[in-house]
Amino acid sequence: MPKKIIRVNMNKLEANYEDLPEKYQALGGRGLTSTIVADEVPPTCHPLGPNNKVVLAPGIVTGTNAPSSGRISVGGKSPLTGGIKEANAGTDFGQKLGRLRIGAIIIEGQKEGDDYYLLKITNDGAEFKNANKWVGKGLYEVYKDLRKEYGEKISICGVGIAAELRGGNSGLSFNDPEGLPSRYAGRGGLGAVMASRGLKFIIVDDTGAPGVEIKNAELFKTGIAKLVKALGDHDVTKPGGALNTYGTAVLINIINESGGLPQRNFSRGQDDRSSKVSGEEKAEEIKKRGGARPHACHPGCVIQCSEVWTKPGGKDPVGVLEYESVWALGPNCEIYDLDTIGELNRAINDLGMDTIETGDTIAVAMEGGLIEFGDGKGAIKLLEEIRKKTPTGRILVNGTEFTGKAFGVTRIPTVKGQSMPAYDPRAIKGIGVTYATSPMGADHTAGYAIATEIMGVGGTADRLEPKKAELSRNLQVATAVVDSTGYCLFIAFAILDIVEGLQGVVDSVNGVLGANLTLDDIPTIGMQILETEIKFNKAAGFTSLDDRLPEFMKEEKLPPDNEVFNVTDEELDSVFKF
Amino acid sequence: MPKKIIRVNMNKLEANYEDLPEKYQALGGRGLTSTIVADEVPPTCHPLGPNNKVVLAPGIVTGTNAPSSGRISVGGKSPLTGGIKEANAGTDFGQKLGRLRIGAIIIEGQKEGDDYYLLKITNDGAEFKNANKWVGKGLYEVYKDLRKEYGEKISICGVGIAAELRGGNSGLSFNDPEGLPSRYAGRGGLGAVMASRGLKFIIVDDTGAPGVEIKNAELFKTGIAKLVKALGDHDVTKPGGALNTYGTAVLINIINESGGLPQRNFSRGQDDRSSKVSGEEKAEEIKKRGGARPHACHPGCVIQCSEVWTKPGGKDPVGVLEYESVWALGPNCEIYDLDTIGELNRAINDLGMDTIETGDTIAVAMEGGLIEFGDGKGAIKLLEEIRKKTPTGRILVNGTEFTGKAFGVTRIPTVKGQSMPAYDPRAIKGIGVTYATSPMGADHTAGYAIATEIMGVGGTADRLEPKKAELSRNLQVATAVVDSTGYCLFIAFAILDIVEGLQGVVDSVNGVLGANLTLDDIPTIGMQILETEIKFNKAAGFTSLDDRLPEFMKEEKLPPDNEVFNVTDEELDSVFKF
Repeated sequence: MPKKIIRVNMNKLEANYEDLPEKYQALGGRGLTSTIVADEVPPTCHPLGPNNKVVLAPGIVTGTNAPSSGRISVGGKSPLTGGIKEANAGTDFGQKLGRLRIGAIIIEGQKEGDDYYLLKITNDGAEFKNANKWVGKGLYEVYKDLRKEYGEKISICGVGIAAELRGGNSGLSFNDPEGLPSRYAGRGGLGAVMASRGLKFIIVDDTGAPGVEIKNAELFKTGIAKLVKALGDHDVTKPGGALNTYGTAVLINIINESGGLPQRNFSRGQDDRSSKVSGEEKAEEIKKRGGARPHACHPGCVIQCSEVWTKPGGKDPVGVLEYESVWALGPNCEIYDLDTIGELNRAINDLGMDTIETGDTIAVAMEGGLIEFGDGKGAIKLLEEIRKKTPTGRILVNGTEFTGKAFGVTRIPTVKGQSMPAYDPRAIKGIGVTYATSPMGADHTAGYAIATEIMGVGGTADRLEPKKAELSRNLQVATAVVDSTGYCLFIAFAILDIVEGLQGVVDSVNGVLGANLTLDDIPTIGMQILETEIKFNKAAGFTSLDDRLPEFMKEEKLPPDNEVFNVTDEELDSVFKF
Repeated sequence: MPKKIIRVNMNKLEANYEDLPEKYQALGGRGLTSTIVADEVPPTCHPLGPNNKVVLAPGIVTGTNAPSSGRISVGGKSPLTGGIKEANAGTDFGQKLGRLRIGAIIIEGQKEGDDYYLLKITNDGAEFKNANKWVGKGLYEVYKDLRKEYGEKISICGVGIAAELRGGNSGLSFNDPEGLPSRYAGRGGLGAVMASRGLKFIIVDDTGAPGVEIKNAELFKTGIAKLVKALGDHDVTKPGGALNTYGTAVLINIINESGGLPQRNFSRGQDDRSSKVSGEEKAEEIKKRGGARPHACHPGCVIQCSEVWTKPGGKDPVGVLEYESVWALGPNCEIYDLDTIGELNRAINDLGMDTIETGDTIAVAMEGGLIEFGDGKGAIKLLEEIRKKTPTGRILVNGTEFTGKAFGVTRIPTVKGQSMPAYDPRAIKGIGVTYATSPMGADHTAGYAIATEIMGVGGTADRLEPKKAELSRNLQVATAVVDSTGYCLFIAFAILDIVEGLQGVVDSVNGVLGANLTLDDIPTIGMQILETEIKFNKAAGFTSLDDRLPEFMKEEKLPPDNEVFNVTDEELDSVFKF
């Protein structure tokens, strides 16, 4: 039985099952969403108009018992960047789709009128329900309600108030194992694309599902054994290792030490106060408060970098506070207080937004004089403006660049309209090359040069050396492949250093597909995906000038290194040449 | 004595006089501003950052007694379009610069801190004054104050509250003969560029000026005699002709009749109620109220299409209500009341904005649900939000596309981020070709195909025929030349039909320059200017995909013709090929 596509036509409120075409059968995750978007979405269409689509696809091995493989990709034309977008999340939602043998969901058309709908997917098919009663509500409450109404076994994909506002900063929220709306395909505003179709929620119940078809069970089994061993052996990914013990926020102290932790809207790269919001402090607090740490974001994760952050006494559980979220809402806004950061992160999840875009937006609003830097209470109030759908909220919900323009700020840390994550490219050049050249806009996960430049994974590189095209290219290519398998990108820490682990990934993919891919095929496959994405962007009007960092980073020096971004345009243009 | 450039360095608060370089000596107006911008402004710079400049230049014959030649051009990189911009106005400001033999003013650098300055230019030199006392004030009051402080003989260029907010919709305001701030280089947000340098006003007193150097007085005299005769003979431009009697708003009934007068944010092309705000009605009212009609926007204009609109009893004089302003604030918002339109236009002038961009913005805000269509009082209140610098005001002041995004509207009538004027390109295809391909963004004055398609000037053309590349190209080329001479574009109505008039223009330019240009040189010169502008835009990241109308115009039919915009992309791309 081949995998299916569910084609959701919102004009007619129909959800039709189609066989996954032959040409898509070896694809999953990002490889599949980007290919479908490139095949079906006109690159010049208005992102919120009738011709855009949202595509969801679990990875190739998602739904199997492969370790740390519960990723789901979401694709479409981004209202934030104007280019192609893939954002992915770790959640059991993708695993259930995988077990139901659903290769992709394609949401197209626009429902006339103002009604919102919920799509319920089970082993028996898909059906629509009116979702108007949840409009204007926070997702923590709504996800609780949905589980009350449809049972605890469902997985949920939803969009929040930010998407109702059609915000360029609106993500797709997925549940964590506790049912909290804390797992996000957050970047690039695909939540608004889904909302503009008239679709607010997708819920999946995989009761009775046939499970992922594994064409070569033996090979698959060998493969995941190799990968499990590599993950268990590597210092970064092993139980008791850095990610497992402290979560991603272990990086706060490390990146601050390097001088690349942006403070006060990218005006300094270091501040002693950063240690107050470090991963170490946070892990300690979680222990005291009775949250959870370590914690898996989906069943079957062996890395378990996640957590459940709560208020003191275990109240108001948020879900994970990732490094990039802590940075964006913390040091970048000169807020050095975990409770405030936790409250902000919860509000952002509740509204259905991206933490990185939001933190950068708040910092730019601070620079524009809307509130003072360091004003945590003020920041929380700004998010309430979004909840109340006020004009201020409508500015903020459209992200960093939009907010900068509204408040006359010119130091705007964005590429292709998407705001930069937690690493200043003037202090760590390779990640800047990724920000500049990724077809996704400024995105650390697109080619995580930090691994090599700071963590010594996959070799080492001087962070201030501006020749980084090759490093970024290799990482972007490998990432495009990992994002297609369904494995969490964090397996890369292990498999970049342990070749047996990498072989295990290939074996497991071959096992599921009944294919004969080798290690040598990885660059080709990754390049194909990137080429598809970059072609889309070109057809949408992008040029090499869109592969640049903002002007201020070439002119304003960043303390303490006092470096500007000095990677040449030629170096940037050498990353991809299609 | 060669003409001078005044180079205004706002970092140092210095205004230095330089000789106009040899290579610029045959240039004026748009030809000069676009050349200097292309030579001195990095195309990728942030429009409001340190590297952008504002360039002002009177036309070649401006300041002489050539008829209808009081135009001044303003150039820079536009914060609205992201490309090069030239906007021009009819005012005695340019005439005084011409008589002072100032070829151009180049404003560069950014003053640190929040202070604003005024630059006073006389025959003795230029000096700065602090202008903080006028910050936050409406321009009608300020212009009155300035004339009180510096004398009635000064001419004023100023930017208002919209520019203080760094709005993409902020123009440079110039005085009319009554001293009202009603003459605008309004399009494209150059007001914000000037304000972001720290400069708020330029005042010019030409007492003791040597006058424009005329190298061949005899030829010049012959030339202007030919032009005066042509203007006096042509039905459109003659005394008692359409423009003189009714002003530009004579077009309301004509374009409504054609089905191309956009109503309700470009959703219909005709509405019987439009006649309530026609030029005929307006002329009648002005007579009753004791305003002025006809009226010259600057000394020496023989067409005299201008007027002074007032409230009943002659109160609160506005200045002219142009056709495009009446349309933008009227039918496009379903407001069919001249008093409301007059009040809106006065508030827009007072804030320092572009009427077209503002009207389109209000209509999009209406579609987004901020107020109802037809709600004139609500529209006036929206402008007060800008005056009060509220978040709603900060949205609106950034123009139509920005406002559409903030309020989730997808029917956004813009090209290159600049909103469309008063002619729907689905009903009148040639003007759509100009909107799409002009390097300025949607701009009717860039290549006024209406002349031929509707008015039968310069030949005739079926308005629904989609082969219009050649018509638009020829008009854009001719316009680039006219905009450089300093003559008002309205002389084109006469000289397109009367070749002796055209020869008069060339003679008068040759007379001033001591040159030997012929009619055959016009296309070459026009093409050079356009090529300079289009090269700048390419270097700023524009592609042929920026030469397109918005998606909805290709999909939504416009009643009553029920046509979409069906000019092919190939036709659009054939307009310019550099």
